[in-house]
Amino acid sequence: MSAVSASADVRDLDIDGDTLREECGVFGIYGHDDASAIVALGLHALQHRGQEAAGIVSYDDGVFHSERRQGLVGDNFSDRGTIERLAGRSAIGHVRYSTTGGTILRNVQPLFAELASGGLAVAHNGNLTNALSIRRDLVRDGAITQSTSDTEVILHLAARSRKPRIVERFIDALQQIQGAYAIVALTNKKLIGARDPLGIRPLVLGELDGRYILASESCALDIIGARFIRDVENGEVVVISEEGVESIRFSEKQPMRPCIFEYIYFARPDSVVNGKSVYGVRKAIGQELAREALPEADVVIPVPDSGVPAALGFAQEAGLPFEMGIIRNHYVGRTFIQPTQTVRELGVRMKHSANRAAVEGKRIVLVDDSLVRGTTSVKIVRMMRDAGAREVHFRIASPPITYPDFYGIDTPEREKLLAATHDLEGMRQYIGADSLAFLSIPGLYRAMGEEARNADCPQYTDHCFTGDYPTGLTDLAIAGPKRFAMLAEAD
Amino acid sequence: MSAVSASADVRDLDIDGDTLREECGVFGIYGHDDASAIVALGLHALQHRGQEAAGIVSYDDGVFHSERRQGLVGDNFSDRGTIERLAGRSAIGHVRYSTTGGTILRNVQPLFAELASGGLAVAHNGNLTNALSIRRDLVRDGAITQSTSDTEVILHLAARSRKPRIVERFIDALQQIQGAYAIVALTNKKLIGARDPLGIRPLVLGELDGRYILASESCALDIIGARFIRDVENGEVVVISEEGVESIRFSEKQPMRPCIFEYIYFARPDSVVNGKSVYGVRKAIGQELAREALPEADVVIPVPDSGVPAALGFAQEAGLPFEMGIIRNHYVGRTFIQPTQTVRELGVRMKHSANRAAVEGKRIVLVDDSLVRGTTSVKIVRMMRDAGAREVHFRIASPPITYPDFYGIDTPEREKLLAATHDLEGMRQYIGADSLAFLSIPGLYRAMGEEARNADCPQYTDHCFTGDYPTGLTDLAIAGPKRFAMLAEAD
Amino acid sequence: MSAVSASADVRDLDIDGDTLREECGVFGIYGHDDASAIVALGLHALQHRGQEAAGIVSYDDGVFHSERRQGLVGDNFSDRGTIERLAGRSAIGHVRYSTTGGTILRNVQPLFAELASGGLAVAHNGNLTNALSIRRDLVRDGAITQSTSDTEVILHLAARSRKPRIVERFIDALQQIQGAYAIVALTNKKLIGARDPLGIRPLVLGELDGRYILASESCALDIIGARFIRDVENGEVVVISEEGVESIRFSEKQPMRPCIFEYIYFARPDSVVNGKSVYGVRKAIGQELAREALPEADVVIPVPDSGVPAALGFAQEAGLPFEMGIIRNHYVGRTFIQPTQTVRELGVRMKHSANRAAVEGKRIVLVDDSLVRGTTSVKIVRMMRDAGAREVHFRIASPPITYPDFYGIDTPEREKLLAATHDLEGMRQYIGADSLAFLSIPGLYRAMGEEARNADCPQYTDHCFTGDYPTGLTDLAIAGPKRFAMLAEAD
Amino acid sequence: MSAVSASADVRDLDIDGDTLREECGVFGIYGHDDASAIVALGLHALQHRGQEAAGIVSYDDGVFHSERRQGLVGDNFSDRGTIERLAGRSAIGHVRYSTTGGTILRNVQPLFAELASGGLAVAHNGNLTNALSIRRDLVRDGAITQSTSDTEVILHLAARSRKPRIVERFIDALQQIQGAYAIVALTNKKLIGARDPLGIRPLVLGELDGRYILASESCALDIIGARFIRDVENGEVVVISEEGVESIRFSEKQPMRPCIFEYIYFARPDSVVNGKSVYGVRKAIGQELAREALPEADVVIPVPDSGVPAALGFAQEAGLPFEMGIIRNHYVGRTFIQPTQTVRELGVRMKHSANRAAVEGKRIVLVDDSLVRGTTSVKIVRMMRDAGAREVHFRIASPPITYPDFYGIDTPEREKLLAATHDLEGMRQYIGADSLAFLSIPGLYRAMGEEARNADCPQYTDHCFTGDYPTGLTDLAIAGPKRFAMLAEAD
Repeated sequence: MSAVSASADVRDLDIDGDTLREECGVFGIYGHDDASAIVALGLHALQHRGQEAAGIVSYDDGVFHSERRQGLVGDNFSDRGTIERLAGRSAIGHVRYSTTGGTILRNVQPLFAELASGGLAVAHNGNLTNALSIRRDLVRDGAITQSTSDTEVILHLAARSRKPRIVERFIDALQQIQGAYAIVALTNKKLIGARDPLGIRPLVLGELDGRYILASESCALDIIGARFIRDVENGEVVVISEEGVESIRFSEKQPMRPCIFEYIYFARPDSVVNGKSVYGVRKAIGQELAREALPEADVVIPVPDSGVPAALGFAQEAGLPFEMGIIRNHYVGRTFIQPTQTVRELGVRMKHSANRAAVEGKRIVLVDDSLVRGTTSVKIVRMMRDAGAREVHFRIASPPITYPDFYGIDTPEREKLLAATHDLEGMRQYIGADSLAFLSIPGLYRAMGEEARNADCPQYTDHCFTGDYPTGLTDLAIAGPKRFAMLAEAD
Repeated sequence: MSAVSASADVRDLDIDGDTLREECGVFGIYGHDDASAIVALGLHALQHRGQEAAGIVSYDDGVFHSERRQGLVGDNFSDRGTIERLAGRSAIGHVRYSTTGGTILRNVQPLFAELASGGLAVAHNGNLTNALSIRRDLVRDGAITQSTSDTEVILHLAARSRKPRIVERFIDALQQIQGAYAIVALTNKKLIGARDPLGIRPLVLGELDGRYILASESCALDIIGARFIRDVENGEVVVISEEGVESIRFSEKQPMRPCIFEYIYFARPDSVVNGKSVYGVRKAIGQELAREALPEADVVIPVPDSGVPAALGFAQEAGLPFEMGIIRNHYVGRTFIQPTQTVRELGVRMKHSANRAAVEGKRIVLVDDSLVRGTTSVKIVRMMRDAGAREVHFRIASPPITYPDFYGIDTPEREKLLAATHDLEGMRQYIGADSLAFLSIPGLYRAMGEEARNADCPQYTDHCFTGDYPTGLTDLAIAGPKRFAMLAEAD
Repeated sequence: MSAVSASADVRDLDIDGDTLREECGVFGIYGHDDASAIVALGLHALQHRGQEAAGIVSYDDGVFHSERRQGLVGDNFSDRGTIERLAGRSAIGHVRYSTTGGTILRNVQPLFAELASGGLAVAHNGNLTNALSIRRDLVRDGAITQSTSDTEVILHLAARSRKPRIVERFIDALQQIQGAYAIVALTNKKLIGARDPLGIRPLVLGELDGRYILASESCALDIIGARFIRDVENGEVVVISEEGVESIRFSEKQPMRPCIFEYIYFARPDSVVNGKSVYGVRKAIGQELAREALPEADVVIPVPDSGVPAALGFAQEAGLPFEMGIIRNHYVGRTFIQPTQTVRELGVRMKHSANRAAVEGKRIVLVDDSLVRGTTSVKIVRMMRDAGAREVHFRIASPPITYPDFYGIDTPEREKLLAATHDLEGMRQYIGADSLAFLSIPGLYRAMGEEARNADCPQYTDHCFTGDYPTGLTDLAIAGPKRFAMLAEAD
Repeated sequence: MSAVSASADVRDLDIDGDTLREECGVFGIYGHDDASAIVALGLHALQHRGQEAAGIVSYDDGVFHSERRQGLVGDNFSDRGTIERLAGRSAIGHVRYSTTGGTILRNVQPLFAELASGGLAVAHNGNLTNALSIRRDLVRDGAITQSTSDTEVILHLAARSRKPRIVERFIDALQQIQGAYAIVALTNKKLIGARDPLGIRPLVLGELDGRYILASESCALDIIGARFIRDVENGEVVVISEEGVESIRFSEKQPMRPCIFEYIYFARPDSVVNGKSVYGVRKAIGQELAREALPEADVVIPVPDSGVPAALGFAQEAGLPFEMGIIRNHYVGRTFIQPTQTVRELGVRMKHSANRAAVEGKRIVLVDDSLVRGTTSVKIVRMMRDAGAREVHFRIASPPITYPDFYGIDTPEREKLLAATHDLEGMRQYIGADSLAFLSIPGLYRAMGEEARNADCPQYTDHCFTGDYPTGLTDLAIAGPKRFAMLAEAD
């Protein structure tokens, strides 16, 4: 059906598109008196996974209630009225990033459909690589699609399944899709979780007051004092009902191959993802990087906030002082207008300021988590020099990104990835640093606790560094890389 | 998909549900430079047909633009920005009443779907009597429905049609539905109008600057200075394109049987519906009523605004002075809160006030358009007596309403229709008048210019007075009267 | 202090400025459990006196509560929350029109000040003719003014009075001001009403449940079922407290000289102003007009809604049929945009439409309440001719307006008043009517029940027709006519 | 005049009131083409000084423009429309914290008054200690006050001054007030800055493109690339006009005595206040603290973000690893609802989460900037123990706070200051730490680069630790401590 037009109200903190945009986060709880309030708190803890919009669907005595809003969880799901409208003892929720051109409210999840066998609400983190092909078939067959989201494709597949029971229909749908996904779904009787056959996107099972919870990351369990039980396995559907947790495998058993970017950038440092502390991994990355590429320098300075743990690891390994040489302004709201060229250039300092006292006259090592387009790095290097840095040695806590992602991370097109078009010296010149180094792929796997990358069956989904995509890319063949990238918006 | 929850913000002027709620209004224009601005003006002129929400869809160079809002056209479609977003030289629009429980934005029309053969936007006035049965089949077959509106059913039927061209698909859909409808639809090449096989709901064709227009009533042509061409016929589809107007019959030729309530209550007095002036009909009704039931009285007083023309006709026929004995407050907004019983009773006078100077010491004839539940009449009679009326003779400018409507008029359940449960003397006692009379059915047909009602093939859809429903009522058999009435919300 | 900038959100129903803009309305109640809810209902009944903004101040146990909003009473003061915030058993309220350039919230009344002798809230209808002079003295003496309203001048004068008690300070202030005013004021112990020495603006005293009420018009008593006690007298202050009503004269006794425009245009037809039914006066005006200037014609048609009573009187006196030849659209919201000249001209019909059935082929008498700039009349005459009127005879139910008002009516500058710059034939040609006639001044006084106008001491304030201003115009000497007119915004 | 009632919409990040609430920040620029855009950027950089409301006043060709809004600068002053409304080449701005009961818009600065000698807009950071006495005199003398802010007192004093020129009137006003203030003011010709006789609150002078700037902190110069010129001196008025900068002393020369809390907590770490790097002072504080009170421990963990620099200094001095053991959620919006006790307790983790990987099994030193009520500290200690900390040693980077502030810092009443009612062991038990230590006053002065505190003439305003208030406290005598504290709201 038609879209409700919404004025785009995008908090674009990333003027140049020079970050990897997050995917999404999901959360669900079954059978708790404060279901919606707990989902709101859980989504708040997952806010770093998507800040543009949030939604909650609850089920109460025959009726599904839905509230979906643009903006932060804390601004939209913190009032008593909203939580009271989301009545019921089971609920699921979703946070998401905006897509190209602004978030449209109809794309905000969870989505809901009344199937012949009952209502089904679905929230999804990830991206399908054959959604376009499926959608084309669906429309050809008379389906009417409301949104541009992959989640809707899953709902249509479940709606058209000939299986009688709703869990069977849901699994039927999963078996037709390809790509990365962590899904929470709600029926009138059950809370369902599912993770793609390779476990690319994360999903954990927890428990509070004897009630089961599903969440993208363990930090969402911590905020409500819930206990971590285990990661949902790759290719597993967990069905939570009054009878407890039932586990169903919907794909052949195979080694897990989770996305390595969760550790490098996306997950919160206090989360434990697939059994590994994110903070611990990031510090280990910094240590590996110091071992690989330690320059002569006086201080180590993180690009805040994401570069902090790696910079700490670097400084500890290198025996150099760690200093907050860049101050981050946490009150950045909407993009400021820039009436003239003069003011436009000032805008660079909206988010980051140099702390001259920590920088002046020093040879500094700047540690950032990753390098995408490089536009921000140019500005930060210049800012450090303006603040009196004698030398600026840039260290990147991940390998060069040379391939786009199609699994829920919003990467630029390949030609805009600095590392895809420049060699190391070219990149160094571009960003204006005195030296530049990236973590190596072996170093990255060492930091993950592996002896080495297994080229035949890599332990992690790492195609952005290697081009080794873990699944088929059906839509890429249909649509070509540009259009597919546009379609491969994260859910 | 799931609903966007919207705070109900209903301007409920009708606290007791004691009016017939209007259906909806539609408007479309093809190939005009100011298409959306003209649709907005046209919808403004049709605002009496639905005040809760409005929407416009335009087509511009490959893209359909949609804006749908709760509230008045003049409050939501009068700014330059909105009109500019609705770019393009063809557009359709819709105004609607709220349904039980408040208007939900997803139900606001026009609805839009991308079909395999191209985009289709549809706006609809009326109600289908087999939508429930079709919807059940659709869901059983895996369709996902977003709204509760009949319009969506039409879209689904068109989407599933096996016909190759979009106009054929649309006609295919019409041939499966039953009930009352006036539809305007927009494709990337055409503006389409359709009227049900009996022509129950009105639709006219007009022209401005050589460009074709479709509208529910002729008053919407007048506001923009457009020329009335003709009524769209019952069972006719008109397809407007660069080649001009093509007329297609999609049902067998049969006599028209338009809804008589358009004349009694719904249409604006300055409209000409099916060749008859609404104002003229209403005055003729008042004259018939005076001939049938003239009491001894001093003045004739209309219940404003809808009772005014009949009261004028009554006064002229009776030779009695016509006086504004009731003053209407036109600034009524949302329902006022009523903290205590005292204040609650005051609320009666929110909308109508007695004009003592015109009433005191007089024997008055009160003329109202129709009697539904009678709750407002009770209050108006009491208000007249409080203002000093010596006698109050109530005259109703239509026959007793004894059957509910299922074609787009929001009538109460049968047991709440005063005339369905009381005889004339019982009604008189209930409303507290000194005398009460209704127009007779022969009188009504005389006022319409007919010799008599043709019982075999009535000239008008008049089941509310006669129980003679013009079409099958498929859903009634499935759902029973209460649930069907609830489902039979007007579009 | 500085203004709170507010986006102007003006419901400008009067695109050409071709009406007399209303002044304001005031309402107050003392000692009632539902004080604020009753004030809201009273203001709703006075909404015709000002639609741009409304405010209520209540007093509860040591604290004054204030809510002031732009927009209609029914849209802003009908929810439980707002009324609950306005706690207390005494309250006053105000409705106002916008001033040039949009209503600024700081100008919305009631205004409140903490004086040395306690808090004082004031709401005012009218306009002072020496406010500018006083304001100049106040600023020279170090006063800081927040608003541009006369009401603030009254507060400053009361604040600076050397009298010990607050009622004395208030009277001290009244004795320094010149012009027209009806004031309601609230202290921590009393409700105060005051009317200027000539009683130009209206104010009535009523009673509900044994509790006293003050209101601009009696229709505001009717809505809540309150009993009319009497008009407040010219030059009288009424002080309502637990002890009852005390009456204080603050100016010498002299004949009342109320504004005649209240009868012609401003007051609601169901109000009784200074003992005379407004509806009755307007019908009498129509009758006088028919006696003075009856053309050969077929029907009498009012310009709705304000022309209706005079047209009824005219038709009854003339023995001509009264017909609704113009239909008014009551859903007019904000001014529509007018992207092109074509659409701009269409906009004429936004508010009024011709009812061809009542007009076509007829010689019509159009009756309107007054003629200001004439721009609307031009359009209405043209609309009648377009609808097929054979002859159009325009009759104005008041004398020609040749002088501006400075007492709270927003009249255009003199050179924009049609009657100030054209003779009768010139006006007829300008509006394009076949004939034009105004009510004579003797006719107006006859309709008011007077034998004749007393030139030495006119019974009514009628300077707009006669140039005979009832008070000194101090500020006019200071500021010159243009700037004074700009300053003489109604309160 | 009366207040505009505003729904309190307070972003209360500090549920327990367990922080020192910031005062305010001011910024002004003279003669720059992008004046308002630059003020908006400057206020954004000062956002840490007040997040509740912001305002800008500009002067353009005879007219002062004002926009004042609740919420963040980036959310309210970043759109082109707002900046364009603030036309002109000179502008001043203000950010502020909410006061008890929510920010009322009328209290939002800058305030503006039209004086007899021209317009004056004033924005103020600080608090007067005789405002109550002055206000009482003003009201007694007939002044009407609109706000509860000290700034209004300054405006009234300037309005009533008998001096002819506006700068003289402003200085006249300053000479009557007592307390702490940094003021920027704007006239139609000049930008004025003033700092109280002791320089308690900070104010700096800078330059961009040859145009002068005033700002609370140097970080606001950095964001726009402006050059720092010097601190405004204590007791100095700087008058900026087309002629350049004129410096006027309005109080006797005496040593500066700036507020030491700017270094401990308020100023941004990248600011240089009175010639000292805030970051440098904080690190030195951490080092002093490590020298004074180093426990046996494994890691140093800051309470983010304000504890970070001191923790770094502590860790470097102690030779212990610095770890991010607490993760701060930067997306905290409005306070979440807490429907049940269960969920209420969960809310503790809304803002801070434990990073188990950095804490588990460790003896940790927690470093926080200050201890106010201690309620947050209790929760953080418990959170660390829940995350597996073996021992928790709490170190406070400032001396015990035992006296309230009356100069613009929102401290609780004395009985709610933990250090005012508990000895060290009592505090340790209360917060549940294994050990607790505060920085000593000599240590604090050493960290400031002083040999020792000069008891006769202390180098810093430090009464919160010492009870040694730097100015008279006139209002305290009038109102008593509780009411005075309530009145002593920061501007």
